[in-house]
Amino acid sequence: MAASRPQSDDENGKVPRTARGRQTLRKLLDAAAKEFGEKGFHEASISGITRRAGTALGSFYTYFDSKDMIFRALVQDMSRQVAQHAGKAVEGQSGAFAIERSALHAFLDFARENREIYRIIDEAEFADPASFREHYETTAARILERLKRGEASGEIREGMAEPHAWALMGMNVFLGLRYSIWSEGEDSAEIADMANDMLRRGIAKD
Amino acid sequence: MAASRPQSDDENGKVPRTARGRQTLRKLLDAAAKEFGEKGFHEASISGITRRAGTALGSFYTYFDSKDMIFRALVQDMSRQVAQHAGKAVEGQSGAFAIERSALHAFLDFARENREIYRIIDEAEFADPASFREHYETTAARILERLKRGEASGEIREGMAEPHAWALMGMNVFLGLRYSIWSEGEDSAEIADMANDMLRRGIAKD
Repeated sequence: MAASRPQSDDENGKVPRTARGRQTLRKLLDAAAKEFGEKGFHEASISGITRRAGTALGSFYTYFDSKDMIFRALVQDMSRQVAQHAGKAVEGQSGAFAIERSALHAFLDFARENREIYRIIDEAEFADPASFREHYETTAARILERLKRGEASGEIREGMAEPHAWALMGMNVFLGLRYSIWSEGEDSAEIADMANDMLRRGIAKD
Repeated sequence: MAASRPQSDDENGKVPRTARGRQTLRKLLDAAAKEFGEKGFHEASISGITRRAGTALGSFYTYFDSKDMIFRALVQDMSRQVAQHAGKAVEGQSGAFAIERSALHAFLDFARENREIYRIIDEAEFADPASFREHYETTAARILERLKRGEASGEIREGMAEPHAWALMGMNVFLGLRYSIWSEGEDSAEIADMANDMLRRGIAKD
């Protein structure tokens, strides 16, 4: 039973032992996303988070010791959500470029629906540099794995290395900033198509 | 004569009327780059800036009204410096891809020598959102102009549009973050070559 599982603590907060606990933790993280997203790290407060979550202050301290700690947990939670969302979007897809296209398209739509994600991950550069760096290093590693699989399948040319993954990640992040955060007028499918074409064959005239 | 030129104020600080004034302003901006770069916006102070600049507090208030104001002037100064540096690097170069390669190579080296630039421009997302956005919009517009010239000269295929410029800018910014800020072990010329090849012909197997 869940309740009998030993409780393990880590530096990102305590792990809930019950379904109810997991629900409370989820509420706190969602409320933290809103609080940090709207107010920024410095202005955000623990009481603001618990008010939004509709939980008692004591519940907060069951899982986190400080504002810093829930911010760190939130950055890691968002990083995981981005990864899961992209993972789901490419599930069952075949073709290295179709996969990249779907991953970007899903990311653009995800960022539109979760606009606070840029503010929170970008602010981690200052409020929690280790998580900021880990987010991008993990994402780049995942992209490089995909490029290597495409290389193995013969769709992508040989020699894919870390700089290719960082370049592709940068493309995606900046397209998200421009077309998901700063404006939503553009068709995200079209943006994904253009970027995918650029990735596939570059921009030199044939 | 410089001294008789009417003094014009704008929201980014007063414009110095003399060569000596320009020198003081330059000292203040350079000191601000160090202060904000090391301490971040919240911890940085006006007295920290004047101490680093070796100027009196009164000199600061001759040019700026507040910490916010010098930060805004600094972001715009850095944005101009990045543009000038890239402009100088591509001067006299011909060939659309040679130009992009030189611009990236120069940017990677510039970021290595001015590491505070990422921290300051990235923190502008929170401390001065309008300047942050203006920096990237201006940079993207400049890149798009270059791509359009390449299109006109027949090196770049037709249809270059804003998303191509944002994608290319994102590539460059993330390569700078990874290979100029977080690590300097890699040869910046090699990184520029790889990125340029990716831009030119994409990554699909021929």
